[in-house]
Amino acid sequence: MIINVNLGLRSYRIIVESGAVATVGAHLRELGVGSRAALVSDAAIGSLYGKTVVRSLEGAGFSVALVEVPEGEAAKTLAVAGQCWNELLALGLDRTSTVLALGGGAVGDVAGFVAATYMRGVNFVQVPTTVLAQVDASIGGKTAIDHPNAKNLIGAFHQPRLVLVDPAVVRSLPEREYRSGVAEIVKHGIVLDADYFAEVERDAAALCARDLPVVERIIGGSCRLKASVVERDERESELRHVLNYGHTIGHALEAATGYARFAHGEAVALGIVAEARLARRLGLASDDTVARQERLLAAVGLPVTAEAIDTDAVVAAIGRDKKARDGRVPFVLAPRIGAFRLVFDVPAADIRAVLAGLAA
Amino acid sequence: MIINVNLGLRSYRIIVESGAVATVGAHLRELGVGSRAALVSDAAIGSLYGKTVVRSLEGAGFSVALVEVPEGEAAKTLAVAGQCWNELLALGLDRTSTVLALGGGAVGDVAGFVAATYMRGVNFVQVPTTVLAQVDASIGGKTAIDHPNAKNLIGAFHQPRLVLVDPAVVRSLPEREYRSGVAEIVKHGIVLDADYFAEVERDAAALCARDLPVVERIIGGSCRLKASVVERDERESELRHVLNYGHTIGHALEAATGYARFAHGEAVALGIVAEARLARRLGLASDDTVARQERLLAAVGLPVTAEAIDTDAVVAAIGRDKKARDGRVPFVLAPRIGAFRLVFDVPAADIRAVLAGLAA
Repeated sequence: MIINVNLGLRSYRIIVESGAVATVGAHLRELGVGSRAALVSDAAIGSLYGKTVVRSLEGAGFSVALVEVPEGEAAKTLAVAGQCWNELLALGLDRTSTVLALGGGAVGDVAGFVAATYMRGVNFVQVPTTVLAQVDASIGGKTAIDHPNAKNLIGAFHQPRLVLVDPAVVRSLPEREYRSGVAEIVKHGIVLDADYFAEVERDAAALCARDLPVVERIIGGSCRLKASVVERDERESELRHVLNYGHTIGHALEAATGYARFAHGEAVALGIVAEARLARRLGLASDDTVARQERLLAAVGLPVTAEAIDTDAVVAAIGRDKKARDGRVPFVLAPRIGAFRLVFDVPAADIRAVLAGLAA
Repeated sequence: MIINVNLGLRSYRIIVESGAVATVGAHLRELGVGSRAALVSDAAIGSLYGKTVVRSLEGAGFSVALVEVPEGEAAKTLAVAGQCWNELLALGLDRTSTVLALGGGAVGDVAGFVAATYMRGVNFVQVPTTVLAQVDASIGGKTAIDHPNAKNLIGAFHQPRLVLVDPAVVRSLPEREYRSGVAEIVKHGIVLDADYFAEVERDAAALCARDLPVVERIIGGSCRLKASVVERDERESELRHVLNYGHTIGHALEAATGYARFAHGEAVALGIVAEARLARRLGLASDDTVARQERLLAAVGLPVTAEAIDTDAVVAAIGRDKKARDGRVPFVLAPRIGAFRLVFDVPAADIRAVLAGLAA
C-alpha cells in the first residue's frame, strides 16, 4: 500500500509493505539525495534489522554508517542529540545527506530532531519498527527530545522524505509493546473514522493474534487516517489536536507516575476511557458511544481500569499540558464514534470525577 | 518603510523606522499572539534598550521577562540554548507565547534557535541592533548555534513573525562594528542590484558619517533586497546562495584565523575582493567590475588587503564549507555589478592565487 502525504514541496510517501526493511536503498535512491547516510538505531533493533538496512543502502550505492542511541526514552536527551551531531559531522554528512531512523518512537523522535537541526535540516527517512511508530509517531514530522522537567519540550517540525512501514517486523514485538501501539489504532478509529473503528472491532482477535494480512491492512488504514490529518493541519494549529484524543489525560497519567507504571499505550487507553466518560458527563456523548470504546480497548488487551490514581498529581500534570494556550488546556472529546470536538475550560470537578472513576 | 516578506502562511513585515524600539508592544499586539513573552538580549544591549522594549511590551498588556545571554559568539552554544529553554519553561511560556531577540546577529541566532525548538516552535520577533543584523541576519529565518568544530552547524529555519528595524540605534555602534555591517550592504548591491550599488557609491561618505536619513534609506533598501531573495528561495535551495557572495572565502578566512583576527564584515570584504578577482581569473568579469567593488569597500573603510594569510589553512577551511553538496563547494561569482552566477569545481590553484593576491 502506498499513501501519499500531500504537503506541497514537503510531500512524501508512506510505503506499507511486508519486507520493506530490505528495500530502503532502492527507495532512497529514487529521491535523488546525496550519497552519504547515517542510520540511527538502538542496540536491540539495530541487531535485528540494522544489517539488512545497511546492506540495502550499500547495494544502492550509499555510503552509510550506524549511529547507535540508547534504548527507549533514554535516547531523547540533549546529550544524545549532541553525540549524534558530532558523529554526523565526523562522517562528513552535508546538506544533501540523509539521516534514517530505524526503531520505535523514541529513536524516530531523536533522529528526527537531529536531522531537523543538523545544518538547519537534512533529509530524513523513517523506518518505524513498533506499532506506535508505524501508525502514528513516524508520520507528520513531529520530532523532539525531552527536557528534565517536560517530555518533548524541545523539538521541531521536520517532515520525513519517506516513511517505510514493514508490518512484518511488529510480529516479533513483546506482547505489552505490541498492544500498547494498538491504542493509537483504536484512537484513530474513534475520532476519525467510524467504518475503520468497526473494522478494528471485527478484526480485533486477528489483530491480537498478529495475523499478517490483517496487521498490514489495519496498520495501513491507520497510516492513511494519520496522513489525512497531517495534510490538513501540518503544524498542529487546530485539527491536528484531534490526534491528542486520550492523550491529555494519558500524558498526565504517565507524568504523574514518573513514566514508570504505564506503557504509553496503556496510559492512552485509560485516557480514552476517562475522556470518553468526560464527554458523557458534559452531555456530548451517549452511553453506547462510551461503552463501544471501552469494549474495544478491553478486546485488544488494553487496561480500562486503574487503581490508586493520585488525582491531584494528574490534575496538576494536565495544567502543565504543552498544548495549553495562554493557560487554557484543550480537550479533544468524541461526541460519537468517528467524530470529535475541541473543548476548552473543562471544569476541574469533572476531570476529578472521571479520574476517580478509573478505579474498578 | 514597511517591507512585506511574502511566504504564504509564514509571511511577515519588516518595519524600518527611527524610534521603532519603543513601538514593539503595539506591533506585537497586532499579531494576536498570547500574553507571555521573553526578551532575549545581552548585558550591553539590554542596558541600552532593554527597558524601552520592556516598557513598550508591558504598556501593550504583555507579561515579559528578560533572558540574558552572553555577548557575541559566546551566546551561540548548546549550554546557553539549554539555559534559555529552562527559563522559558520556568516563565510558563506556551505555544502562543513570543520570544523576542534584541541585539546583534549572535543574539538573533540563538534566540531564534530557542524559539524554533521550544515546544516545536513559538512566535519569534527580531529587534536587530547592528547593521549586520538589520540588513541581513534578522531577515529570512536562519537560526543557529555553533558546534565546537563548526560555526552555525546546529540550527533551523524558523521565520520571525515580525522584524523591527530601528536605524537610529546603529548610530551609537563602535566604528569597527558599524563598518563591518556595511560589508553586507555592499554585498547586496554587487550581486543583486546595480542601481542600489550606485546609490551606496554615491552616498558612501554620508553612510560613513551615519547621517540618519541616509542610513535609514540605505538600510531599508538592503532589507528590501534581502527580503526579495528570501521570498524566492526560503530554504536556501539555490537562489539564496547568492547571499553567500564574499562569504565562501570570508568564512574560511575567519575559521583559519580562529575568529579572532577579523570582524565578520572585514573577512567578508576580503572575501569579496578575492571572489571578485576569482571571477576575473575565470574569464567571467571585467577589470572594471572588480575595481568598482574594491573602491567601494575601501571608501566605506573596509579592508581590501591582508598580509600573512595562511593559504593552506584557508583552502582547507573552504573544503569544510557547510554549503558543499556531496563534497563540491559552490562559489557565488559576480560577472558584473547587479548579477551573479553559481560556479562549482573552481580549481584550487585559482583560489590559492587570489588568496595570495590579498597581500598588498
